[in-house]
Amino acid sequence: MNDPERHTIIKYEEELATLHATLLKMGDLVERQIAEAVESLVKRNSAQARETIARDEEVNRMDVEIDERCIDLLALYQPAAGDLRLIITGLKITTDLERIGDNAVNICERTLGLNQEPPLKPYVDIPRMAEIARSMVKDSLEAFTRRDAALAEAVIARDDEVDNLDRQIYLELPRYMAEDPKTVPRAAGILFVSKFLERIADHATNIAEMVVFLVKGRTIRHMDVRRGHAEPA
Amino acid sequence: MNDPERHTIIKYEEELATLHATLLKMGDLVERQIAEAVESLVKRNSAQARETIARDEEVNRMDVEIDERCIDLLALYQPAAGDLRLIITGLKITTDLERIGDNAVNICERTLGLNQEPPLKPYVDIPRMAEIARSMVKDSLEAFTRRDAALAEAVIARDDEVDNLDRQIYLELPRYMAEDPKTVPRAAGILFVSKFLERIADHATNIAEMVVFLVKGRTIRHMDVRRGHAEPA
Repeated sequence: MNDPERHTIIKYEEELATLHATLLKMGDLVERQIAEAVESLVKRNSAQARETIARDEEVNRMDVEIDERCIDLLALYQPAAGDLRLIITGLKITTDLERIGDNAVNICERTLGLNQEPPLKPYVDIPRMAEIARSMVKDSLEAFTRRDAALAEAVIARDDEVDNLDRQIYLELPRYMAEDPKTVPRAAGILFVSKFLERIADHATNIAEMVVFLVKGRTIRHMDVRRGHAEPA
Repeated sequence: MNDPERHTIIKYEEELATLHATLLKMGDLVERQIAEAVESLVKRNSAQARETIARDEEVNRMDVEIDERCIDLLALYQPAAGDLRLIITGLKITTDLERIGDNAVNICERTLGLNQEPPLKPYVDIPRMAEIARSMVKDSLEAFTRRDAALAEAVIARDDEVDNLDRQIYLELPRYMAEDPKTVPRAAGILFVSKFLERIADHATNIAEMVVFLVKGRTIRHMDVRRGHAEPA
């Protein structure tokens, strides 16, 4: 019990567990940010949009905290092999989670503009995209926790659904704009919201790719010919 | 000379130098991708846009190579303090460079559509934004090489110029669309190109922030109240 080496190992295991818990907590927060951003749009609730924007500070604080935990772990314990991959995965995942948070803020910023005008049409595809993107974030972190490469690969496959919905919106809205010029600012706002959701799904895909790297010890990024185009980031 | 420890140190220094050189090479390539993407738009050169899209594979290959170099360095040499920060900076910088490359591809994809229709108006602000964004990438890596926090901070300050140009375009183009519905698809395309350039500048800002972290040993991300809003990623 008083063996200092054993104490160090216990401390190290504790710190790894804390890192993991902090990443999951950040994931929960970011999932909530996506849901609240799109709810503030659909329910035309500008107060909720402003609260969501304000809450981004907490996302940013967690990003810095996770980076520091990872760096401390590397510096203090110089972990090898599996643990090294785990910590590097943490460094990459927090960047993606933070940028998902930024995209939720961007949705809220467009929402504040959109809520000042009458609705263009009921939102159908946008909440559907948001729900897929949110579930991709959730499952990518679940795959991270369970070291489940198959689940991570399922997340990566789901990215196409979001891309297709985004493409559909991009084909549909310019027609509104062309028929009635008064709709232009609203339609442009919705185009951007769609693009931000598509990007959130891309970040979830990045996380899932990191999980495959973590589990299999090799990178699969840039190997997915199915996607066939660059992922906007 | 035959001292194995000394040999290890020389090998380690060589590998750090190779990592650095590879990052700069990736930076050059990505700068070129930005320039070619916007040139293909301005000169209406769709062949150039397609070549730029194809060249993204090289960017992706370098991203994987840099990640692997960083992980090997961490695993084999377990560096401490300054070198540890350097390698972590490398891991983060390559992610931003790779996503800058993706945004250049996205510009090319819009260019292919825009080039099929007559020009809406001469491109003035877009090449200006591209030039600022490209120089931000260049200077952020120059700051990285020289460990120059002041230059990195100058890059961060320049992000506002790009944001302002993007905002200007966003205010201007919907007026075209409202006056003449036939312009809608073209104007929407240009709005997206502007947004992609704005995002490239954000990634250069991220790199500059990492350089400040590298030099000063503390993170300045999320501390810039001037920017006052989330950076889209």
